[in-house]
Amino acid sequence: MILCDIGNTATKFLIDKNIKNYYKKDKIPKLKDDIFYISVNEKATKKLLKKNPHAINLANFINFETSYIGLGVDRVVACSFQENVIIIDAGSAITVDIMENSKHIGGFILLGLNSFLKSYENISKRLKISKSDFEKNINLDKIPLFTKDAILYALIKSIILPIIEICKDKNIIFTGGDGEFLSQFFENSIYKKDLIFENMKRIIDANNSPS
Amino acid sequence: MILCDIGNTATKFLIDKNIKNYYKKDKIPKLKDDIFYISVNEKATKKLLKKNPHAINLANFINFETSYIGLGVDRVVACSFQENVIIIDAGSAITVDIMENSKHIGGFILLGLNSFLKSYENISKRLKISKSDFEKNINLDKIPLFTKDAILYALIKSIILPIIEICKDKNIIFTGGDGEFLSQFFENSIYKKDLIFENMKRIIDANNSPS
Repeated sequence: MILCDIGNTATKFLIDKNIKNYYKKDKIPKLKDDIFYISVNEKATKKLLKKNPHAINLANFINFETSYIGLGVDRVVACSFQENVIIIDAGSAITVDIMENSKHIGGFILLGLNSFLKSYENISKRLKISKSDFEKNINLDKIPLFTKDAILYALIKSIILPIIEICKDKNIIFTGGDGEFLSQFFENSIYKKDLIFENMKRIIDANNSPS
Repeated sequence: MILCDIGNTATKFLIDKNIKNYYKKDKIPKLKDDIFYISVNEKATKKLLKKNPHAINLANFINFETSYIGLGVDRVVACSFQENVIIIDAGSAITVDIMENSKHIGGFILLGLNSFLKSYENISKRLKISKSDFEKNINLDKIPLFTKDAILYALIKSIILPIIEICKDKNIIFTGGDGEFLSQFFENSIYKKDLIFENMKRIIDANNSPS
């Protein structure tokens, strides 16, 4: 069984415990095994189905309670089986979803780290900083005195303060490419790299089990 | 006397109390009067000087105390003559500068509203919202239940929370294209549309006065 998570920038496969990402320019392989997929990207979905018409859209097998209209299926899957927690998927966008008493009560969408960086660079070359600048310790307690610090400080604050405000005493589960990096700013957080695939498996299992 | 403020996206003239913006594609006019300019944009500066070699760079006439390395001259001018206040210039980037006892003690650089909107749109068409969506009342007290609200909420929070955190009991002076819009979120704020030009005049006056 192959799992496939089609996002805004990459199509991610889980094949035999190995994860492989395919980007816009990459060719999608023909695969013989059963494929279960979720997608927030129509174009990339068509690309998958052209080579693999047998792939099954898992979205049709999910029961999920929310008043949110148009909640992306990746967010639905990430939030499935959760009780009282904030779920944060940090990719090109950072989705923040609040689960309360096993119910999704809403959420919001921050820009992702790379989106921030690209956007600063688009304003002016002088505002360009690279992701390697994040490796160093970022001092959020001192008011910045350099352009690079002024951007790093503002960028990180723009992401973490809205999360802190909504979080209150809840725990946080991070997933997504920048989830591990961001989780360092929250004591009450864990990082689950493969949360989406894990929950896709649980949804498939729940549908296969005799009821 | 003509004043000229060369920014990242526009070259702004003050001629006879009228303000006129010139963008990348626009031709810069030949002007006979004295021109005093400040600039954070080398390319646009060259364009101005080609037609107006007599234009004078006001940056050479400013005394300003700060430990910040590489502070943009527009920020220097906006902060000049201020004592204990937060100065926020909300353009394609939003610069936030802290003045304490007439000294600049640092600052940071947030993305501007348009930069946020463009960046969301670049992630996915589904995340595109237009500036007219800001006209409606934005409810920041309710956890969003629609994609549009989820973006508006996150975008506004990403801008105002870092400002609130740094602000403490200080007053705020907003300037720049989105300054008036943003000032609505801060009770302790005023909007000064022409802060930069006003301060440029004061700097010229200070240099002309007998000492």
